[in-house]
Amino acid sequence: MNFKVIHRDVSSRARCGELITDHGMVETPVFMPVGTQGSIKTLTPEDVERSGTTMILNNTYHLYLRPGADVIYSMGGINSFIGWNHPVVTDSGGYQVFSLADLRTVSEEGVMFQSHIDGTYHFFTPEDIIEIQRKIGADIIMPLDRPVHYPVEKIEAQSANRITIQWAKKSLDAFHSGINYHPYEQSLFGIVQGSIFQDLRKLSIEEITMLDFPGYAIGGLSVGEPKAALYDIASFTADLLPENKLRYLMGVGKPEDLVECIEFGVDMFDCVLPTRVGRNGWAYTHTGRVVVKNSVYKSDPSPIDELCDCYACRHFSRAYIRHLFNAGEMLGPRLTSLHNITFYQRLMNSAKEAIRNDAYLNWKKQFLGMYHSDIASEKEQGERL
Amino acid sequence: MNFKVIHRDVSSRARCGELITDHGMVETPVFMPVGTQGSIKTLTPEDVERSGTTMILNNTYHLYLRPGADVIYSMGGINSFIGWNHPVVTDSGGYQVFSLADLRTVSEEGVMFQSHIDGTYHFFTPEDIIEIQRKIGADIIMPLDRPVHYPVEKIEAQSANRITIQWAKKSLDAFHSGINYHPYEQSLFGIVQGSIFQDLRKLSIEEITMLDFPGYAIGGLSVGEPKAALYDIASFTADLLPENKLRYLMGVGKPEDLVECIEFGVDMFDCVLPTRVGRNGWAYTHTGRVVVKNSVYKSDPSPIDELCDCYACRHFSRAYIRHLFNAGEMLGPRLTSLHNITFYQRLMNSAKEAIRNDAYLNWKKQFLGMYHSDIASEKEQGERL
Repeated sequence: MNFKVIHRDVSSRARCGELITDHGMVETPVFMPVGTQGSIKTLTPEDVERSGTTMILNNTYHLYLRPGADVIYSMGGINSFIGWNHPVVTDSGGYQVFSLADLRTVSEEGVMFQSHIDGTYHFFTPEDIIEIQRKIGADIIMPLDRPVHYPVEKIEAQSANRITIQWAKKSLDAFHSGINYHPYEQSLFGIVQGSIFQDLRKLSIEEITMLDFPGYAIGGLSVGEPKAALYDIASFTADLLPENKLRYLMGVGKPEDLVECIEFGVDMFDCVLPTRVGRNGWAYTHTGRVVVKNSVYKSDPSPIDELCDCYACRHFSRAYIRHLFNAGEMLGPRLTSLHNITFYQRLMNSAKEAIRNDAYLNWKKQFLGMYHSDIASEKEQGERL
Repeated sequence: MNFKVIHRDVSSRARCGELITDHGMVETPVFMPVGTQGSIKTLTPEDVERSGTTMILNNTYHLYLRPGADVIYSMGGINSFIGWNHPVVTDSGGYQVFSLADLRTVSEEGVMFQSHIDGTYHFFTPEDIIEIQRKIGADIIMPLDRPVHYPVEKIEAQSANRITIQWAKKSLDAFHSGINYHPYEQSLFGIVQGSIFQDLRKLSIEEITMLDFPGYAIGGLSVGEPKAALYDIASFTADLLPENKLRYLMGVGKPEDLVECIEFGVDMFDCVLPTRVGRNGWAYTHTGRVVVKNSVYKSDPSPIDELCDCYACRHFSRAYIRHLFNAGEMLGPRLTSLHNITFYQRLMNSAKEAIRNDAYLNWKKQFLGMYHSDIASEKEQGERL
């Protein structure tokens, strides 16, 4: 893996970069749609490509449970299995174990949990998580971490931070000593935790960057904290991370969050939001979010967003898409998911262009002036799979 | 609308033809996937085009209930509403009223029924059905008919037959005297009923063909009758229909049914089977049906059908598709639906080529020798929406 910063915006800390992996090049800042179980819900790889997506995230926890890392390995790895010929990231499963699974017990060795699917017991050590991700075969993989929710007592955040650092060391050892099952390079990132406590974030960064990972994820945000805290901590953390390494803000976020955090010099984002709200009949437009399944659109001949050139907007009216949702047709969620991902990618392309033109702050102001973020609860923001 | 027979197979009664409508040309014999509610479930018009589909069927009953004929009319008609630029057929709603709806009361005037969605009361006259289909705007539309299930007492079949003939006359009058809401031609077909009784079929044909429709549908089959009865009546009825008019066998069927009934000179088919069984994880191959969601395919790297060039078969293994079904991912039903429709259309293309080569019987023998029809119940065969 090779990453270099290509251009720094003069008006902000925003930056453009190039990430080169054995599955191709990715321009940053990049937004990765989430294929929880090896599928960006409702969409084919062809659809995802057409949306402008260049890299996706898959969830190790889900793929470990179904179909299992060995199945994916036997099928030639995740790219071959899911038919996606571009870079893939897998997360560590930490977030899912601590949010989805039942009856967790954490020790220094790892975490015991019950599958949310069938209640079976499983035990993840940091070493297991490396081995599983080695088999799955994503280009970028993550060490097991111990995220905490918001709000959290500082003492708990401190303890989670300590264990995350220990696990990072074990993960790195396992990564270097273990087998590479696939004929291409995988890269292990470090994850910074510390909740909303600046001193814990600082400590985490010091310890994690000492291990010299090729990229650093900012974890433990978008878990229910107020918007201001998300931005403050993202900004604070991004600032302390090495200038020449990738910065990946995990699980964030809404369009306005991407726009804000790109300004802090974040390079990578992932979030289930565009597909999740899409399945719920909500669509993003340049002026804000539209609940396209509402009956007010019953006879509306206009597309979801007049400025969008995605397949859904080129061919279908709000009236038709509203009908699809109303009649329970699967094509509805499919079209809004496709549209929403395209919206996100167009947003990222527009942001990159603004950075290259040294006009990021102006562009951001223009975008936010037009785009009315809705009043959806912070809880929704925090929901990840 | 213009239809002409282009070639008659010398080895059988099978024939190739060309149907020309204002939305384009269709080669016959043709199989129409069913877009019950204005969507071939899970698929876009682009997918449907790529499958080789040239004409589709939509259900008047469903579209009348949701979103309503006026909405479709205000959106410029069915083609514009659903984004399909090729010919469309709508059925009369008769089958759905008599199979899906609750509490039907039939009189000579029409049929009163309760919506299966919300229990609201509705009344369809033959004239209403013409008006609704005029607004929806399909190229080929159907008169309200009175189908009967199997088994049925002859006296009941007789009475249904009588009412179907009366309604056909009223429909034709309404069609000629009513408004054409769209700037293109619509054609009204006649429907032959009579259950499995040859004398009733003969009577129905005599009465209905006297009205001189541009095409004739064979209704009342694929409603639970034994396979032999389906073939006998389809053959008997097709034989008595005018040589120079389209023959449309409604609601049929399985791949082997198409192959058998093309031999009798049937030109048009529709059936929900390829999409319905596709959503259930069943896929057609040249050797028979495969239950691709079965765990036996957990690590199977082969495509659904090695002889298929559809998007699903070019890009995905049985292992992946099985995983999608197992994990409840919508992409599973989407891929198998696409594959199944493609399988049907390739079958039709192959049949047409055999006819043009005067080798239909040989081709049929070859196909059936390779294709093992499964033991699924006749009931499943009869299930239509």
